[in-house]
Parts: sequence; C-alpha cells; structure tokens
Amino acid sequence: MKANRIHNFNPGPAALPLAVLEEIQASFLNYKGSGMSIVELSHRAKEFEAVLSDAVARTRRLLKLDDRCHVIFVQGGASLQFAMIPMNLLADGRSADYVNTGTWSTNAIKEARVLNKPVQVVASSEDRQFTYIPAKIAFNPGAVYAHITSNNTIRGTQWQSFPDTKGVPLIADMSSDFMSRPFDAGPFGLIYAGAQKNIGPAGVTMVIVRDDLLKLVPENLPAMLKYTTFTSKNSLYNTPPCFAIYGVHLVLKWIEETVGGLEKMAAVNRTKAERLYGCIDASGGFYRGTAEPASRSQMNVTFRLTGEDLEKRFLEAAAKSGLGGLKGHRSVGGCRASLYNAVSLEAVEALVDFMNSFAKRNG
Amino acid sequence: MKANRIHNFNPGPAALPLAVLEEIQASFLNYKGSGMSIVELSHRAKEFEAVLSDAVARTRRLLKLDDRCHVIFVQGGASLQFAMIPMNLLADGRSADYVNTGTWSTNAIKEARVLNKPVQVVASSEDRQFTYIPAKIAFNPGAVYAHITSNNTIRGTQWQSFPDTKGVPLIADMSSDFMSRPFDAGPFGLIYAGAQKNIGPAGVTMVIVRDDLLKLVPENLPAMLKYTTFTSKNSLYNTPPCFAIYGVHLVLKWIEETVGGLEKMAAVNRTKAERLYGCIDASGGFYRGTAEPASRSQMNVTFRLTGEDLEKRFLEAAAKSGLGGLKGHRSVGGCRASLYNAVSLEAVEALVDFMNSFAKRNG
Repeated sequence: MKANRIHNFNPGPAALPLAVLEEIQASFLNYKGSGMSIVELSHRAKEFEAVLSDAVARTRRLLKLDDRCHVIFVQGGASLQFAMIPMNLLADGRSADYVNTGTWSTNAIKEARVLNKPVQVVASSEDRQFTYIPAKIAFNPGAVYAHITSNNTIRGTQWQSFPDTKGVPLIADMSSDFMSRPFDAGPFGLIYAGAQKNIGPAGVTMVIVRDDLLKLVPENLPAMLKYTTFTSKNSLYNTPPCFAIYGVHLVLKWIEETVGGLEKMAAVNRTKAERLYGCIDASGGFYRGTAEPASRSQMNVTFRLTGEDLEKRFLEAAAKSGLGGLKGHRSVGGCRASLYNAVSLEAVEALVDFMNSFAKRNG
Repeated sequence: MKANRIHNFNPGPAALPLAVLEEIQASFLNYKGSGMSIVELSHRAKEFEAVLSDAVARTRRLLKLDDRCHVIFVQGGASLQFAMIPMNLLADGRSADYVNTGTWSTNAIKEARVLNKPVQVVASSEDRQFTYIPAKIAFNPGAVYAHITSNNTIRGTQWQSFPDTKGVPLIADMSSDFMSRPFDAGPFGLIYAGAQKNIGPAGVTMVIVRDDLLKLVPENLPAMLKYTTFTSKNSLYNTPPCFAIYGVHLVLKWIEETVGGLEKMAAVNRTKAERLYGCIDASGGFYRGTAEPASRSQMNVTFRLTGEDLEKRFLEAAAKSGLGGLKGHRSVGGCRASLYNAVSLEAVEALVDFMNSFAKRNG
C-alpha cells in the first residue's frame, strides 16, 4: 500500500478515500491556479464558493432532495445539534418525541431537557443494553418532530428502515451512516451528520432542514445558533470551516463519480458488512456480535472475544498486521470495526483473513 | 516563488507560513508513521493528543500565561463567542461593559442583547466612522467584564495599549491580532481568537479563560455552549476540528522556533506596517490611510485612492502583479492590505514597490 498506510477501521475521524487525500495533497500549495492554498483562500473567493456550491449540489442529487430542503454547514458537531434542534423548533412550548437507542440519543434527550424543553421518550432499547432498534413505536400525533439516531456507533445497531411517524416530521442524527445508503428523504424535516465518519474530515456538520421547520425558528436566538442564519446566508454568515467543507466536496464527488452513486455505495457497504458478520457468525463462538442480528449496523460491527485478555491480544496482533482502530468504545469495551464508505472491501478482506487466522491460532 | 504562489494579503482566511503548508503536504498521507493521514486519526489517538497538548503548551509559553488560565479550542468562530460570553458569564443578572470600535464589537453587543443580557456601551468611536480607538474610558466598577475588540479588521484600527479597567476583567476579541505581538495577559479574564488570521486555518477558535470567570458559568447550559465542558475535557468532549488544531499547532511552532517568539514576531510586524504606512504617507495624497494615525492597525492597513475607478484599476493591476486580497471589506469599500504573521517582509516590499510605481504611472 502506498506511503505505508494501514487498514483504518477508526470509528471517526475515520478513513478517507486515498484518491481524495492525494488530490488534497497535490494541490495543497496552489489551489486551481489561485496561487494560494485552499486554506489561504478567502471564504468569499469564487474558488471557495464553487467548492461550497458543489458540495450542496451533490448532496441534493445524491439524496434526491426537493426544493423545500436547505443544505447548510454548521460547526460544533452533532453535540451542538442536540441543543440547536430544540432551541430552534420547540420555542412555542410544544413537545417532541425521541427514541432512545444509545449514548448519542441519550445525549440528545439530555440537551433538550437542559433547555427545559418538553420531550417525550416514546421508545427505548435501554432494557437490553441498547442492543436492538425498537419496533412498533406509537408517536404522538401532536409532536413537533420525532427524533431518532439512524446508526449507533457504540452499540453497533442501525435502523434497517425508518419508522412511520404518521406525518410527524422525522429528525435523524445520521452522523455515522449518512451517505452510506440511499433513503427516502420525504418524511424527514431535518437531518444532521458530523462529517468525520462517512463524508469528510472532522470540523463540520451537514444539516438538511426543510422549509416548514424553518418557520418555527424564533427571532431571539443568537445568530450562530439559528438555522435561518445559515439558510439565508448560504452558510457564509461568518467564516465557515473551509478545509472541512472542501473535504466534504471531494468525498461527495468521489461517491458520485468514482463509486457511482448511493445505490452502488450501499452495495459495497452491504458486501463489506456481510463479509465481516459472516466471519463472526462462522467462528463457532470465538467471536460474538453484540447487536441483535435484526438490528446489526453495516457501519460499526461490534463484537467480543471470549475474554478481555484475549481481546487485548487480538487488538495488539491486529495492529501489528496493519489493521488499526479496532478497539471498542471506552464505555463498552470489546472490539469494533467501522466500515465507513472509505473503508475498502480489500481492507475488510484483510481483516477477515486476520480474524480467521487469529481464531485458528487461539481457538 | 515556489508553485507559482502569489503574495496573499487576504483579511482571513489568510496567508499561512509556506513551511507550515509544506509540512502538512509532505506528511498528508501518513502522519508520523501512524499509517494514516492527520485527518484520519482518531481525536483520542496519542498522535493527535500530542498535537493538541503542544498547541496549548506553546500558547502558554508564548503568552506567559499563569496556571489560572485555561486554553481551549471551540468551534463557531468569534461570532459564537459573542453569544457564549454573556450566556456563560452574565447568568446572575449582573451587567458587562462593552467598547464599540466597529462591526465586530457592534455584533458582540447585539448578541448579548438578543439574549436579554444587561450590557452597557461605555465608549464608542461610531461618531467618526470607527476610525479611532476611544481613550479615557470610565468602566463601571461593578461590571462582570469589560469587552473590547483589540484589532478592527474592517476599519483598520488597533488598540496600541490596553485600557486600565481598575480591576474589571478584560475580555478581548483578538481574532485579528492574536499572537502578532506580546502583551500582559494579567488583566484579561478571557481572550478569544478565530484561528484563520494569525494562527492557522479557519474552523477553530482559541479561547483563553481564567479560573475566576469559570465560577460564573451556570449549570443549565447546553454542553457545547459551556466553557466548563471544554476546560474539564481538555477540548475533547466531542470530536474537535482536528485539522484546524493541527494547523494552529504548526503555526505556533513556527512562531516559537522559526521566528523566535512574540517579541521577534512583533518586530517583523512593526517593520512591515511601517513600510506600508510610510509608502501611503509619502504618496502626496495619491493613497490616503482611513484610520486616524494614532489608532492605526499593524494588521490591516486600510487606504483609499482618489476615486473608485482608480481603486478598481489599482486592484486589477495588483492582481496581475501577483498581489492578491487587497480589496477593502464590502461594507466600506476601498483597499486593505492585511499583514498577518505569515505575510513576509518580502511580500510587503513587493506591494510597496508596486504601489510606488502605480502612483507614478497614474499620479
């Protein structure tokens, strides 16, 4: 592999397509004949405005968004969205529904409550350590929105299809599976995703917000905490995180032009996940997936070995074999392989080969 | 000049040291033998923690900060700080003083008022279009803090020395002259600076906040809007803007090791500004500085020619000579040369030569 790079299974920040990294590197001292680095260009220069517009246009095409949707770039990660959503959409005292499927949903609920916003947890998988996605949820017809976390990086679960809210606008934290598969954006009032897993480097959060929800935004919010500031100024009210947006632009271009779109991206991601879960399930109990099979994530494959000592040796041996980022989240332990868009099938096959051979040596 | 780079006088994002850009480029596919790009590393990896710690340690050394000061990295730019400061420090109903020296001060005041916080404008230079820095200001002894903008990018003014607040903690938006000169941090309770002018790429804001001010932070704020979240978690509560922090680390290293510290940085900046103001003042009225001489900024040299047509031709001819970013802010027009840390004396001399020759041809 070029430049002695490893196979990177980091949970985020995570692997980026090598072609994207090489393009950034090649033009880093002089972006498109401007005589400046991309990081030295004004955010109001025509070169940067083209980068930003292109990222928005590709998002619209890849997700087939209609004209009611605004695509904006915000800072502060999903964690700031946990607060901005209720600040912007629950100003009038009405309530929202939340589904709790793990750490990030829990934090989203907590932040709304810190702001004294009325939120109702209409379903939760906490009873079985967040190892599954709840089904048959009764949403409140009067809720302003219904909030879900589409993929749960820590517990390795993912919504296989989105719930029917009977017209209540869905809001999803898609940080860890955004742009990994196509979906119908129709039921969604707002989608947000930190870039650092599937679509770019850390430092920017993409938010897609629909016109009807923007009408709920109150006047008396600080400018930087108000969605309408971003939608009315095309994300250029103040200096945006230019480099991160540039990275998103290049990754979306790669998904569209090199991979061939979201259907093809999803097919690759499905094959990768099947390969790895197949290895786990065929290991005769040497490896054990932690998520319930019907709720398994294609993005974060979480698994345990039969003991913590063995897990430690597994992680050390993997690192020596050029397989990095396989440690589980510190809150749950174990192992996790994150198979985001930029992780190649070749990388997953190298991991599976290693896992099979490690099981043989230690089984 | 390497890679056909121009002389970049952008107001921010702005020029970065060529050595820094080259270092980023050279290691972009494999950061320090990790087998990953700096943008693919986990923010909890030892390599990134070293980057972050080094940026903090260099900041402490360069500014001679004592142990009461915390150095943190926040997103959202100075514009989010305009809101976070009153949210965090004026929770108990007490008031703060603001000095209004231009657009950014005006916005800082506006954001505090949007939050219904009691703020008092104790001095303003609006009476003469913000062309000077007010002197002899009477601060309120009971104010929680006194807020100033140390350098005004749009009008080209700068505090030559900081006001005596008689013990009221100073807060300064130093976005456009941070790390350009040494100063006594003693009177400051909080300092903030968007990185994209003097210390790095866009996408991160450095905040230096003192222990006694942190005691004012209320519990019931969203995590991402609370200074104590950042101070207690070493800026790693959630994924930080890793690339921007990496850039800050490299620029601070350059200031400390290549330039030789803030006294030397200030001497270079002084020489650059003297050279350019000298050219303007010696032009017999062909060029006219817009700021009052006693308040002139060493960072942003704002000037007019005798007519808008001539200014347009000046900017076009400058661009053709490889001198970029000289257009004044769209709210005031005219011309502006930003002489941040990474703008070399050589670049300023090229600009002065061009300006002299343009004046000769058109005078």
